[in-house]
Amino acid sequence: MDEQAALALIGDRLPAAGDDCAVLDGQVITTDMLHERTDFPDGTTRYTAGWRAVGASLSDVASMGAEATAAVAVYAAPEFDDEELLAFVDGAVDVCESVGAEYVGGDLDGHEEFTVATTALGDTNDPVLRSGASPGEAVCVTGTLGRSAAALRLFERGDGEAANDLFRFEPRVRAGVALRPYATAMLDSSDGLARSVHQLCGASDCGAALETPLPIDERVDAVASGDDDRRELGAFFGEDFELVCAIPERSLAAAREAVPCPLHRVGTVTDDGVTLDGETLPDRGYSH
Amino acid sequence: MDEQAALALIGDRLPAAGDDCAVLDGQVITTDMLHERTDFPDGTTRYTAGWRAVGASLSDVASMGAEATAAVAVYAAPEFDDEELLAFVDGAVDVCESVGAEYVGGDLDGHEEFTVATTALGDTNDPVLRSGASPGEAVCVTGTLGRSAAALRLFERGDGEAANDLFRFEPRVRAGVALRPYATAMLDSSDGLARSVHQLCGASDCGAALETPLPIDERVDAVASGDDDRRELGAFFGEDFELVCAIPERSLAAAREAVPCPLHRVGTVTDDGVTLDGETLPDRGYSH
Repeated sequence: MDEQAALALIGDRLPAAGDDCAVLDGQVITTDMLHERTDFPDGTTRYTAGWRAVGASLSDVASMGAEATAAVAVYAAPEFDDEELLAFVDGAVDVCESVGAEYVGGDLDGHEEFTVATTALGDTNDPVLRSGASPGEAVCVTGTLGRSAAALRLFERGDGEAANDLFRFEPRVRAGVALRPYATAMLDSSDGLARSVHQLCGASDCGAALETPLPIDERVDAVASGDDDRRELGAFFGEDFELVCAIPERSLAAAREAVPCPLHRVGTVTDDGVTLDGETLPDRGYSH
Repeated sequence: MDEQAALALIGDRLPAAGDDCAVLDGQVITTDMLHERTDFPDGTTRYTAGWRAVGASLSDVASMGAEATAAVAVYAAPEFDDEELLAFVDGAVDVCESVGAEYVGGDLDGHEEFTVATTALGDTNDPVLRSGASPGEAVCVTGTLGRSAAALRLFERGDGEAANDLFRFEPRVRAGVALRPYATAMLDSSDGLARSVHQLCGASDCGAALETPLPIDERVDAVASGDDDRRELGAFFGEDFELVCAIPERSLAAAREAVPCPLHRVGTVTDDGVTLDGETLPDRGYSH
């Protein structure tokens, strides 16, 4: 059973689950685990790891349109080096401060592979779920796509400083809160634009017709080996932690005005099927 | 740097951390990670693993005197078997229900070793910290000690059913809430009675004079190889998830009346030093 099928199985048992966060009374909560082998390429500093691991959970809070309030993490490693540990904590503290949340600590654990489990909390009485999109609405995405893919190429090339900079994304908490009055469905693009749109459409029982140009980050151009590679990195690679949402046409101008970052229209909600420039867009992307 | 030193280092940076839970506005939050190799012996069912992993975090909530409200978990495994996964979720749901909390989901993650990260939330405006004990107060512990140690011996003997039963402890949430008006300092005994008392004394800047008989579970007698072994399993082994607290003498009767489980006086808070029957009690126990 793959992760998608397993999550669906659990979703049947747990009504509060199934979105980017579980919904509590007035709050949302999300938890995630990252591993050295799959999530922190050679060259990732512990400061970047702390920022990114906690940031991934803050991004889930953002995608519910909630105000991020607090985060915790378990830091599991073969040994506890004081500089590494404090750098990790600094990264966690700084990413929380960047979105107005507080990093309140967590736990340490001995483990062979460097592994981090993070949990974030947010406040909202009216979370934006994945399930409210309707045909005719605009499909939008914040910021640019492909930054993490570009960072991986830079890590491979040994350009660690530029790669770490790209890896420390800004969780879109302010954008999520600003979009809450307008977005009918929202999630983050951690699995890539293609899979995220499929997930939004699956939860909303609709389709989407996307159109190029997609807002692929210019730093992807510098590392991509051609147009196909550029599209692969921008649309499928994932781990960008941008917000993907559906917004009614009449609200689009107001939403753009409210959001403190670029908001690109990438397509239109349809009755069924997910396409890019009229061709089927496969449901594949980053599997965590 | 060992885990204790590393936690102290982080505590200097994060004022909300350093207790069994981090303290938020009106809430407490705690997170933990458990691994197959160190925490789930051969024979542990996935139902028991779900119960115990989530229970460990609920126990931290209990030790703050908070009402447990919700828990999440990351389930990381090499593959997702539907029966195992649902058994884990059932265990997590059931341990939450046993204390009036809700298991609201979490995430799945591919990982070589079966690993679980759990987070629990609790409500309280007046958490009981580790730091409020004063000389002359009674040192008390809920329930009995050594159950997890006895369970491990039963797992080694192949008596999986009895071992799993013992491994599914009841998080002392109701006892923690009942103790809140009386306890001046509290934590759980996850690191063993000896280390827990040392931690309470360290945080409260005091000592403790403990006295036998300690409330060692009768099931320890059935597996211990003698008096020394019995004392080792009962006082040092840990993972019992009972509450260890300091209570003023004048409140002891009322506290006993209020708590829905046995509350044993095991000693008295002193100015300094931790002793058992007059002899120094070493600060050793379970390191997670």
